[in-house]
Amino acid sequence: MSREPAEHGQVLHRMPIELRWRDLDAFNHVNNSNFMTYLEEARIRWFESLGEEWVTENTAPLLAAVQMNYRQPIPYPGSIVVELTADRVGSTSVTLGHRITSADGAVLHADGHVVMVWIDRASGRPTALPDPVRKMAGA
Amino acid sequence: MSREPAEHGQVLHRMPIELRWRDLDAFNHVNNSNFMTYLEEARIRWFESLGEEWVTENTAPLLAAVQMNYRQPIPYPGSIVVELTADRVGSTSVTLGHRITSADGAVLHADGHVVMVWIDRASGRPTALPDPVRKMAGA
Amino acid sequence: MSREPAEHGQVLHRMPIELRWRDLDAFNHVNNSNFMTYLEEARIRWFESLGEEWVTENTAPLLAAVQMNYRQPIPYPGSIVVELTADRVGSTSVTLGHRITSADGAVLHADGHVVMVWIDRASGRPTALPDPVRKMAGA
Amino acid sequence: MSREPAEHGQVLHRMPIELRWRDLDAFNHVNNSNFMTYLEEARIRWFESLGEEWVTENTAPLLAAVQMNYRQPIPYPGSIVVELTADRVGSTSVTLGHRITSADGAVLHADGHVVMVWIDRASGRPTALPDPVRKMAGA
Repeated sequence: MSREPAEHGQVLHRMPIELRWRDLDAFNHVNNSNFMTYLEEARIRWFESLGEEWVTENTAPLLAAVQMNYRQPIPYPGSIVVELTADRVGSTSVTLGHRITSADGAVLHADGHVVMVWIDRASGRPTALPDPVRKMAGA
Repeated sequence: MSREPAEHGQVLHRMPIELRWRDLDAFNHVNNSNFMTYLEEARIRWFESLGEEWVTENTAPLLAAVQMNYRQPIPYPGSIVVELTADRVGSTSVTLGHRITSADGAVLHADGHVVMVWIDRASGRPTALPDPVRKMAGA
Repeated sequence: MSREPAEHGQVLHRMPIELRWRDLDAFNHVNNSNFMTYLEEARIRWFESLGEEWVTENTAPLLAAVQMNYRQPIPYPGSIVVELTADRVGSTSVTLGHRITSADGAVLHADGHVVMVWIDRASGRPTALPDPVRKMAGA
Repeated sequence: MSREPAEHGQVLHRMPIELRWRDLDAFNHVNNSNFMTYLEEARIRWFESLGEEWVTENTAPLLAAVQMNYRQPIPYPGSIVVELTADRVGSTSVTLGHRITSADGAVLHADGHVVMVWIDRASGRPTALPDPVRKMAGA
């Protein structure tokens, strides 16, 4: 599990997210699980921005894997920016890189990547990426 | 980011965790962020079981990185088992492997590992692992 | 908003719930919102125990109101017990009382009640309580 | 538990809050517990806006009771506005009314009130409201 800054692909989406006090845990730090929620929010807003359905009656995206480096605690109150990149696009999966930074971009709080697959909801098996996702991700 | 089953070290802790309905998200799946919360719970209970302080006025553990493979959705209601392993023990960090399985161990829901560091709370810099953690983790 | 112990109806369901470290907030207290999640878990398990469908394609329960007195902080680690009572049963709504106590029942952490309604999913309007709910709640 | 619109005191604070997809539960509704988190966020931002300490080494606020009417589901994505009012100010407690509306104020999603007390952290007993809170709340 490398801690070097990752080489990411082209930027797909950037969104600011306002922290909530409830994101803090008993150590008074933004809890590690909330970093996943920030990524999820950015992914979903990116999907929404594509202007076409990314969830249908037949198919839905699923998180297959995540790798996250926690680099600097996130101070509350404030907001952060999540940047998503297209690191690799396959036929049934896409690897989305991410950087979570301070609002001004000066502090890198976390980086890493996730692997998303689209599945057939009936069979639970991988299916082709939706066209708008595939196109926007650069394949 | 490999999807092959990881080679893990000796088992440190195993604990059952009861799911909650609120762990489900709008896809009716246990949300990916909750897998992190399950790991966290198992880590903290392991720390507690060591019978010595793992957080002091001066030092506290911090999650430095996580890698998680989501293999099978977790059905609600029910419970899961989290198994933690000692994959690598360094001077200021420890790599804890994990497997999240069904209560009977038959289904592997997720696996991967995390890197924990202990930091000096005043300086925010890495410090030596607490003795009980180092010993139990096999170093 | 009275702080006197409420007069509750017959007990419908009692269930222990194991706390999680993530239930704590930056004050090192179980967060007030988690008390709602404990209630929700007990309600859903009660519904499940009725052995008949409480959510159908056409109808689903909705929380209409809640009143909660927070009496004693809940210590972590440990578990609590949620007790649900049938305080009032109407044609389209049911008032469920609750008591959240320590595992041994000695400490009252919280009490109060919620109002549940069943709605027609298409119209969003109140509909008759499902039979098993109505019967079990004593109407 | 009345469902009539409450009579609230003067407005103390209004803040918009951006929803997150994770606020949704398996019914695809913003979960009832998140309404509490929205209130909490507005309270804390109000406290912060007072420009003086609202948590000290000796005293901290505690939620004593909450009453919430859930009136209309909150649609995602989008944002809501939380409005806090000073409904009653006592010597050791304050009753804060709330209204949660759509961003444009046209839809009332929820209303109710909470009772806050300040406690002495050592003894756990009620103590005088901090001056800035008492003053701003109009006592």
